[in-house]
Order: sequence, then structure tokens, then C-alpha cells
Amino acid sequence: MKLTIRKDQLNDAIQQVSKASSSRPAIPILGGIKFDVTHQGVTLTASDTDISIQSFIPVENGEFVIAKVERPGSVVLPAKFFVEIVKKLPSDEIEIEVKDHHQTSIRSGSTDIQMVGLDPEEFPVLPTIEESESITVPGDLIKSMIRQTVFAASTSEQTPILTGALWNLSEGQLKFVATDRHRLASRTATVQAENDYKFSNIVISGKTLNELSKLVADDNSEVEIVVTANQVLFKMGNMLFYSRILDGTYPDTSKIIPQNFKTELVLHTKKLMDAIDRAYLMSREEKTNIVRLITQEDGTIEISSSSTELGRVTEQLEVKEFKGESLRIAFNSKYMLDALKVIDSEYLFIGFTGAMSPIIIKPTDHPHSLHLILPYRTTG
Amino acid sequence: MKLTIRKDQLNDAIQQVSKASSSRPAIPILGGIKFDVTHQGVTLTASDTDISIQSFIPVENGEFVIAKVERPGSVVLPAKFFVEIVKKLPSDEIEIEVKDHHQTSIRSGSTDIQMVGLDPEEFPVLPTIEESESITVPGDLIKSMIRQTVFAASTSEQTPILTGALWNLSEGQLKFVATDRHRLASRTATVQAENDYKFSNIVISGKTLNELSKLVADDNSEVEIVVTANQVLFKMGNMLFYSRILDGTYPDTSKIIPQNFKTELVLHTKKLMDAIDRAYLMSREEKTNIVRLITQEDGTIEISSSSTELGRVTEQLEVKEFKGESLRIAFNSKYMLDALKVIDSEYLFIGFTGAMSPIIIKPTDHPHSLHLILPYRTTG
Repeated sequence: MKLTIRKDQLNDAIQQVSKASSSRPAIPILGGIKFDVTHQGVTLTASDTDISIQSFIPVENGEFVIAKVERPGSVVLPAKFFVEIVKKLPSDEIEIEVKDHHQTSIRSGSTDIQMVGLDPEEFPVLPTIEESESITVPGDLIKSMIRQTVFAASTSEQTPILTGALWNLSEGQLKFVATDRHRLASRTATVQAENDYKFSNIVISGKTLNELSKLVADDNSEVEIVVTANQVLFKMGNMLFYSRILDGTYPDTSKIIPQNFKTELVLHTKKLMDAIDRAYLMSREEKTNIVRLITQEDGTIEISSSSTELGRVTEQLEVKEFKGESLRIAFNSKYMLDALKVIDSEYLFIGFTGAMSPIIIKPTDHPHSLHLILPYRTTG
Repeated sequence: MKLTIRKDQLNDAIQQVSKASSSRPAIPILGGIKFDVTHQGVTLTASDTDISIQSFIPVENGEFVIAKVERPGSVVLPAKFFVEIVKKLPSDEIEIEVKDHHQTSIRSGSTDIQMVGLDPEEFPVLPTIEESESITVPGDLIKSMIRQTVFAASTSEQTPILTGALWNLSEGQLKFVATDRHRLASRTATVQAENDYKFSNIVISGKTLNELSKLVADDNSEVEIVVTANQVLFKMGNMLFYSRILDGTYPDTSKIIPQNFKTELVLHTKKLMDAIDRAYLMSREEKTNIVRLITQEDGTIEISSSSTELGRVTEQLEVKEFKGESLRIAFNSKYMLDALKVIDSEYLFIGFTGAMSPIIIKPTDHPHSLHLILPYRTTG
């Protein structure tokens, strides 16, 4: 294998694929980036077995020459060092040559690097994905859907299935749900899907989705999603992102979402968020993050929190609409803030079914999001 | 104590003074900010006994009213919570009222906070500094002098005196020196000082100097420095910054700086830094950070590093001037990078007195900086 390649293009591609290389690999090969060089271009692959990312650099882009391939071939190079050194090389061009025993020589300007390469035959084989049905989602939409749900996934490995987000597709509606048993976030969107194409119980790790989100281009270009029995493949321009599907059955959360409420409020999203944020600062001192919400005689609401060491914060908040019974309820202010931060609507609806029952928060502008928070059982 | 004060001005001042409040105070009062309110203004003080910062907010600035004082008085409020909540208060004005037992009420818009205040009598008393002689240094200069020396101070508490920078003043020349026994950085500057004013063996903690540097305004306004037996006071506008002087005698470093060299090189600062940086990436894998510099027959130098796991980096570098003997030497690339990063000269001088003797690095544009690095004793 021998080629000359533009530094910028190589750098962009290795930054992308290196997200899938293990920083502390169980075996050295998993900490590497695999190069497959043909006369058409360079395919870079990294994989930590949970996710795999592949990026293709064509030898030319229109009239612009990116790489000159003298001798095709393959090698695996340690990702961490390679990613760091490439951007610091002195010339705009880099020459890479693999010699005996995968020994790799990298030259750029007056810099000469001899790297210990690894055998490409030992690199994990990417899952074979039969091209069947797929859906297409604009990049910005997939990023929003991830941002608006994944925060509610569990971070505890005790119940691995809850560390993921559940994806369902039915009648052209894609739905994401995440829950850690204390709160839940869901988001739906209409997507381009072939006739009657549907899937259910597809659960993808929250960490993986956050990595994916960073790799989705900022130009809102489309992401094609192919779902198979145990892998999901995301196609984005010259990049392929493979994610393992989490094993297990995601709990049925539809039954815990109340449909009728005893108390209904419509509030200004930003004002509620700021008030809860101040109460949160005080509640944080007590570790429990407990904040109380009490409806007042005059139609406003009071939000408060207290700490024995520090004191007490009390907020008065105007209500745009108020229906139903008066209410005293306590909840985790951090969970409430997390939900409020991702609600993209000037006003929001909060529905309560009692001091011990789930709280439902929804934007008023559209029906695509729903958040649920379980209240705290407190005395007094 | 009762007053109304503008949020922005209060916020700026508490952000400043809170740098001196302990995040984990040995006693609660040291985690507080003391308010002293008179009809002239509000004095805020924080102190962790090593450093103390005091900031004064006048009731008005020209025609602009900052505070309205209804009742003078004092209180100490917990810094961490207060600093965070103030910037999040909903109104541009904040009302603060101290009631019985230092109980403090803070109101802003529809927010009401009751804070547990502490007794101002228990707050540490600031050192009394007799106004005597002082020096005046432009803000940008003091920041440069700190940045160009403090990185070389020790971070080990085993020899506390070396965690500081040594300050000397003589004949209007202010000199900073810092060393951790493996490398040394020094910087001198001409400052405004009264006739024959001099001091020596003033050692100030590196951490404290970094904090000070952040508080020096960006407008290059002057900093007045008053040195006493055990405290240094920095006056900057409405802010006073007190630092304890470290106990002990700083070692005499003048003797270890060679004056004559066997090999002298003049190199391009940025090109040398980039080459060492690439070699550093490889050397870092071996923890020792060893990089070798070898003078070549053709008048260039070779910089190289190697790692058994990864391979080898070799750099060829042109030399602007070369005098003396040929040389092979090894040193810590991180120490060299630290020095190169703060050298403000397009070219630099490196002088060697042998493979086992101190390396001296100096800018070629001016004589104000000097860096010393001890080489590694390596085989081969």
C-alpha cells in the first residue's frame, strides 16, 4: 500500500471514524483505524464492536485531486496517535507507505514517522446489511429527536435495556422513547418510509445516539436509516455508522401515561424554567433536588425549595390557563429542568392526576413531544 | 442592613471576590462573602486566609445610581450559592435586607430568597498594610510575566517554597523566577518604582498568581503593588487582592545558569515548537517524554523520539545560526514545549554546555526572558 493524500480530507475522515475506536481497547486492534486503499479511494474503518464507523475518501472530487494511489493495500494504525499527529503534520500532503510486517512510513514535509502497523486481517468484520427497506430523515430532525429524548435514558448498567432509546416506526411515524423509570421523554415525527414499512422494539444505546448526533452534518442533509435484526445502519454522505441493537424487550410505557387530568396548567416555558432553575440551586444542596409546586388562591402558582443550611427560595409564577383542582406536589427539579430545556414551544401544558401520580408536560404548539415525571412522595 | 443594588454591578463584584472563598471551607465562615454596607457603598470581602479579595461598589458612578442604601450594616453570606443565584435573578434590581440573627432576605422580581446569614464579627480580619513604597506595573505586563514564569513552578507540596515564583526588585528592575529543580523560567521588566525601592526573596504561590492574572482587567490599566513583611497587596481599580508571602528562603538559582556555551543554535521558534510537539506526541506514550536533538553534518538538526509500541518520529530542522561543537542531547519534550510556548520572539537562541549540563533558551529579540532545562542522562 502506497499513496499520497491531502491532509485536510484525511484529517476530517479520521476524526469521524475515530469516534468508534476504543480509547482503552481490550485488544490493540480495536484501538486502530483500518485503511483499505484501492484505485477508487481510501476506506477508513474503526469499530469498538458496539459501533462501527466507515468513511470513504474518493481519489478525486470532480476536478480536485484528493489522493494519488500508487499501490493498493490495507493496514491498521493506532487511532489515538494517528489522529493527533495527522493534524499537526507540516505539509498539506501526506505520503503513507506500508512495508513488510505492516511497518508503515508516514512522510510530510521534513517529518518522517515510522509506525508499528497491525494486521488488517485481524480487524473485526463489519456486519453485512442486506439492502432492504429504509427510512430517510433530515439531519436536523434526527438530531432534535435524539436531544429531546436521550437525556431521559438510564445511565445505570443494572437495567441495560433502559440505557437505550426505543424506536418504533408505524404508518410513517417514527417514535423515540427514553425512560429511567423516574421520568420519560418521547418524540414523534413523520418520516419518508416505503409503503407499510414498520419496525418495533428497536433499542439503541443513548451513548451511541449522542455520538451519532455529533457526526450528523450541520447542513441538514438527509440520513438514511436501515434497520436489521441486530444492527441499525445510518448512511450519511460518504460515511456509514453501524450501531448494535440492545438485547431485550423494552418495557411497555404506554399504560403509565395518564390521559385525563385533575389539574391542568398552561405556563410560559422560559419563565417556568428560570423559576425552577433558581429553586434547583437551593434544592441541590440537599441532594434530593426536591422542589414544591403549589397552586394559589389568586390563580398563580408558587414554586419553592429549601435547605437547612442555606435557607429557602420562593417563586411566584403567573399562569396562562388553569383548570381543575388546587394542588400541592413535589418533584425532582433536575428532571423537570431537563425536560423544560428541550421543549420547543413558547408555552407548555402541565397535567396532574394527583400528588402521587405522574406529571405530564407537553408543548402547546405541536403534539410531537411528551414528558413524564414521577412526583416525590413527601410529607407536609 | 438594607439596600437595593443593580444586579450587573453586584454580579461583577461577587464573581471577583468569590475567587478567594474556599470551595471546601474548613469552617463555614471561610466559604462566605462579607458585605459591609455604608452610605458610600458596598464593600465585599472573601478570604481563604492565603488570599483575600476585596471589591468596593460605590453607591453611584457619576450620574448612574448603582445602589440605594436604606440602612448600613454587615453580614456574611455563603459564596457558592449566592454567586450562582445572583446572575439568575429575574430583575435588574436586587433588594437585600438583613434581619434578626443575620437572617437575610433577597428579593428580585417575583423571587424571594431567605438566606441563613453568618456573623460578620467571625469573619477573618484582613491584614493591615501600611502604605509605604510601591511599584506600578501595567496590567498586560504583569499578566505576561506570570504566564512566562509560573508554569515552571513546582506542583509538589514536598518543597512548598518551589510552588511559588520568586520576586526581586532592584534598580527599577522587577524579576520573576520559577523553578521545579528540572527547569527554570525567568522574566525581567522595568517598572515604575520610587527611588532605590527594592525587595528580595518575595515568593508568591503560583496558584495565587494565576488567580491574580485572571482578575487583572483586560484594558491594560495599572496595577499598584505594595510589598510588606508577609503580604503583598495588589490594587486594581476598586479591587484589592492580598496574597500571603510563602515562608522560607528561595534557593539561589543564579549559579546554575551557564554563561558560556559549547554549542550555540539560533532557530525559528514556531518551527522548533511544531517539530518538538510532534515528537512529544510519540514520546508521551513512554511517559518519560524523552526527545533527542542531534546536530547533523549538513548543518541541520534532527529531533526524534520513539516508543516501542508505536514507532518513531524524526524531524529535520534548518538552523539559522550554528556555532561550536556537534551535539547529541536528550530532554523532556513537555518542558521544552512549555518554554517555547511563552517565548515571544520569532527566533530563539539555544545554548548547550554538554550533554549533561543545563540547556539555556532565550528569545533573540530582547534580553527579558531566560529558560533553563536540565537534560536527561540517556544511553546511546
